[in-house]
Amino acid sequence: MDDISIKMLSDEKYHADILIEGLPGVGQVGKLVAEHMIEELGAVKIAEITSIFFPPQVIIDENGVTRLTRNEVYVVNKDDRSIAFLTGDVQSGSAEGHYLLADAYLDIAESLGVKQIYALGGYGTGHLQEEIQVFGAVNAPELKESAENAGVVFSTDEPGGGIFGASGLILAFGAERGMEGMCLMGETSGYIVDPKSAHAVLRVLSSLIGLDIDATKLEERATEMEAIVEKIREHESAKAAEQLNYIG
Amino acid sequence: MDDISIKMLSDEKYHADILIEGLPGVGQVGKLVAEHMIEELGAVKIAEITSIFFPPQVIIDENGVTRLTRNEVYVVNKDDRSIAFLTGDVQSGSAEGHYLLADAYLDIAESLGVKQIYALGGYGTGHLQEEIQVFGAVNAPELKESAENAGVVFSTDEPGGGIFGASGLILAFGAERGMEGMCLMGETSGYIVDPKSAHAVLRVLSSLIGLDIDATKLEERATEMEAIVEKIREHESAKAAEQLNYIG
Amino acid sequence: MDDISIKMLSDEKYHADILIEGLPGVGQVGKLVAEHMIEELGAVKIAEITSIFFPPQVIIDENGVTRLTRNEVYVVNKDDRSIAFLTGDVQSGSAEGHYLLADAYLDIAESLGVKQIYALGGYGTGHLQEEIQVFGAVNAPELKESAENAGVVFSTDEPGGGIFGASGLILAFGAERGMEGMCLMGETSGYIVDPKSAHAVLRVLSSLIGLDIDATKLEERATEMEAIVEKIREHESAKAAEQLNYIG
Amino acid sequence: MDDISIKMLSDEKYHADILIEGLPGVGQVGKLVAEHMIEELGAVKIAEITSIFFPPQVIIDENGVTRLTRNEVYVVNKDDRSIAFLTGDVQSGSAEGHYLLADAYLDIAESLGVKQIYALGGYGTGHLQEEIQVFGAVNAPELKESAENAGVVFSTDEPGGGIFGASGLILAFGAERGMEGMCLMGETSGYIVDPKSAHAVLRVLSSLIGLDIDATKLEERATEMEAIVEKIREHESAKAAEQLNYIG
Repeated sequence: MDDISIKMLSDEKYHADILIEGLPGVGQVGKLVAEHMIEELGAVKIAEITSIFFPPQVIIDENGVTRLTRNEVYVVNKDDRSIAFLTGDVQSGSAEGHYLLADAYLDIAESLGVKQIYALGGYGTGHLQEEIQVFGAVNAPELKESAENAGVVFSTDEPGGGIFGASGLILAFGAERGMEGMCLMGETSGYIVDPKSAHAVLRVLSSLIGLDIDATKLEERATEMEAIVEKIREHESAKAAEQLNYIG
Repeated sequence: MDDISIKMLSDEKYHADILIEGLPGVGQVGKLVAEHMIEELGAVKIAEITSIFFPPQVIIDENGVTRLTRNEVYVVNKDDRSIAFLTGDVQSGSAEGHYLLADAYLDIAESLGVKQIYALGGYGTGHLQEEIQVFGAVNAPELKESAENAGVVFSTDEPGGGIFGASGLILAFGAERGMEGMCLMGETSGYIVDPKSAHAVLRVLSSLIGLDIDATKLEERATEMEAIVEKIREHESAKAAEQLNYIG
Repeated sequence: MDDISIKMLSDEKYHADILIEGLPGVGQVGKLVAEHMIEELGAVKIAEITSIFFPPQVIIDENGVTRLTRNEVYVVNKDDRSIAFLTGDVQSGSAEGHYLLADAYLDIAESLGVKQIYALGGYGTGHLQEEIQVFGAVNAPELKESAENAGVVFSTDEPGGGIFGASGLILAFGAERGMEGMCLMGETSGYIVDPKSAHAVLRVLSSLIGLDIDATKLEERATEMEAIVEKIREHESAKAAEQLNYIG
Repeated sequence: MDDISIKMLSDEKYHADILIEGLPGVGQVGKLVAEHMIEELGAVKIAEITSIFFPPQVIIDENGVTRLTRNEVYVVNKDDRSIAFLTGDVQSGSAEGHYLLADAYLDIAESLGVKQIYALGGYGTGHLQEEIQVFGAVNAPELKESAENAGVVFSTDEPGGGIFGASGLILAFGAERGMEGMCLMGETSGYIVDPKSAHAVLRVLSSLIGLDIDATKLEERATEMEAIVEKIREHESAKAAEQLNYIG
């Protein structure tokens, strides 16, 4: 058993100029954007990544069928652009795993011919807010200006602690492999799955890659997700109440 | 020293069509069922598994003799069925260990010729209840119907967090090795060793594999276990009380 | 750099029939006994063990000189008995390390020709007590009777949780290498370094190996240690008080 | 991907007799001293060290550009002395990593021809104080006297717990490679970045290596740092207050 296992789903040779990473993280912002774009653009899944660095857990789908927690790579061609997406269930549970997985993700990107990386995520502010800024970081100074033109905010204060996990590491290691990279972080409270923040990130990203993407379904999916979250919360409150009764 | 060590107890060549996994977990439900069936059917121990991923601890038996914490494989032939059991003292203490051990368990299963896996466990609800449902998950869609016919409940809400540890991983990895797999999870409070939940799981499992197994001893063993748990609790309460006296 | 490094201090070929293990643990009971015997019998240090599984820390001796945390092996010949001691600063910080270190300790023991292991430790009761019992565990049933004759208590209840760390693992792995092994655990509160418990263990051990060892210095060393502990406690109370002043 | 990656920034062959280590730690004392000396002496960066044992995080510089957390080696020649500096962003997140990194740091030191190591750090006292002592530890007894002549305090009580992390390990492993080593620990509260303690350490170190180094900028940088820390604290208090409003 390999520490990291990459399963290519066909023998076809795929190509992508751009990699968009949206793995789970604060507010699920990056994941929401990536999943929305995959759906809107009709991207095709080409690879699945499993790893002993992921939680030792299986997911049960709506049909009661189990599968390993995994991340996935999708590709799509649209208006002369070829785009790969990296999204999925999990990030690594250990520091070592984060480094080794980032390296594996870039092996895939390199094999696809990726030249540009957009790493998406949320930036937790700890409070709800009306106007959502999209903060940025780049892996080469010359990328900053075009990002600012698209509305990305560069602040010397935010994010103060740097960027944790896959998003940061694939930018830094991407630079070493000659890939331009940019991180887009939508402000989010950090308490909920945040489609509003995802919408703000999508708007900036669309402008940067020059693709117009309908955001209606993102809003819908987000509303559905919020309903699910609400349901889980009620369920947990109910369980907690029962438990109190049982103990008390 | 290997990370995982499998000791076959004889040179004999064993065969089993079915693997029943009942390692320690919530309410010890899976372990109770597996141990009961081993006893009732007179299964024979054929292998012991030790690992550096297990707790660094020895167990002292009733004669004061130490042995490593370990898991065990048993086999039995009964009414044209050949069954292997995986049960024991522990699960892995690390994510990596969980993955590597699941793989090792399946190596054993494959060498026995296993075609079907039943992974048994408890599903913690946080409260005591009169009627115990047995929730299920399968590693291939076509298994669902027969499970439902045997009384297994498939719910899109439960278990919400997926399945943690060996039970889930051997189903998922089993699918990759061409083994059909099903997880049976008896509802249990999560606070006590739960023979009642084990009994519910045993009933469903008996029906699925078409073997009638007397549950009397399971109830007896369970009662004994509850008595031991009670004794430990009293002992701990007494120690806590003494300690308070000592500190206060 | 090896994960575990064993430095033999000379090229001389040493032999020992008996290994006495007294690594740090509850009440420092095993370490107190081993260090006392090394001093009383004039045992000679023959090996030092360092490891990446030990805390990443150096110790500063009374001359201000640093050295790695390490464990040590001593040997002595006395009245036709040849004894090796394993004692030192630390145990492993990880489960994996515990297993791999136990294996390394036994490699040394095997190279010395060890046939019998005495693993010494404390058994934490959570309260102070007048009469100290020495609980035992053996790695082969036939060892129990002679232990009982020497005053060792075998209880089906104590120690309930088995034996954690090096003491337990070297007994279990020792059995696989054909070495007889016994663990002697002196009752101790678990709150203090406990020379009284060490004394009780020494008495039983002396009887078992048939060597009369003067316990006067053990009592003295213990008294000194208790004074040091007391001093550290006063120091910490003083610091805590100052800190409160600083914050408040 | 190597567990530890050392990137030499040029092909030039550098030499240094002395290694001064100032990695992050209590009060950032060692890091402050090393960074000050690098600036004052105009040392040149020759190597960057990254590792899977470092936090899986990137740092964003003032231009919004990401880079991996890393440590760095600088060299300078001044008044017949050749000095290397080891400083940077991080220490290891795991025990194993601490050991393996210390070994890697010494590989670099050995390739430079280092004969003497000064490991710098803070010694946390838990309270603010007017007079700052510089405590010492050496990796060979004969170094103690010259250290004491330079004002270093050797105490059998301080630091009680030994030295944790890179500073201690490179002294201990340095001794095995024939390098003289000394640790200089400035007293510091442990609550703030402490330029005052750094100043005290610099004074002692200057005397020991016979180089007069202007401390003005250290004081200035320290004041700047304290302002930044203050700003972060205000920001966090503000965030915490907002959060309370949001929750309450």
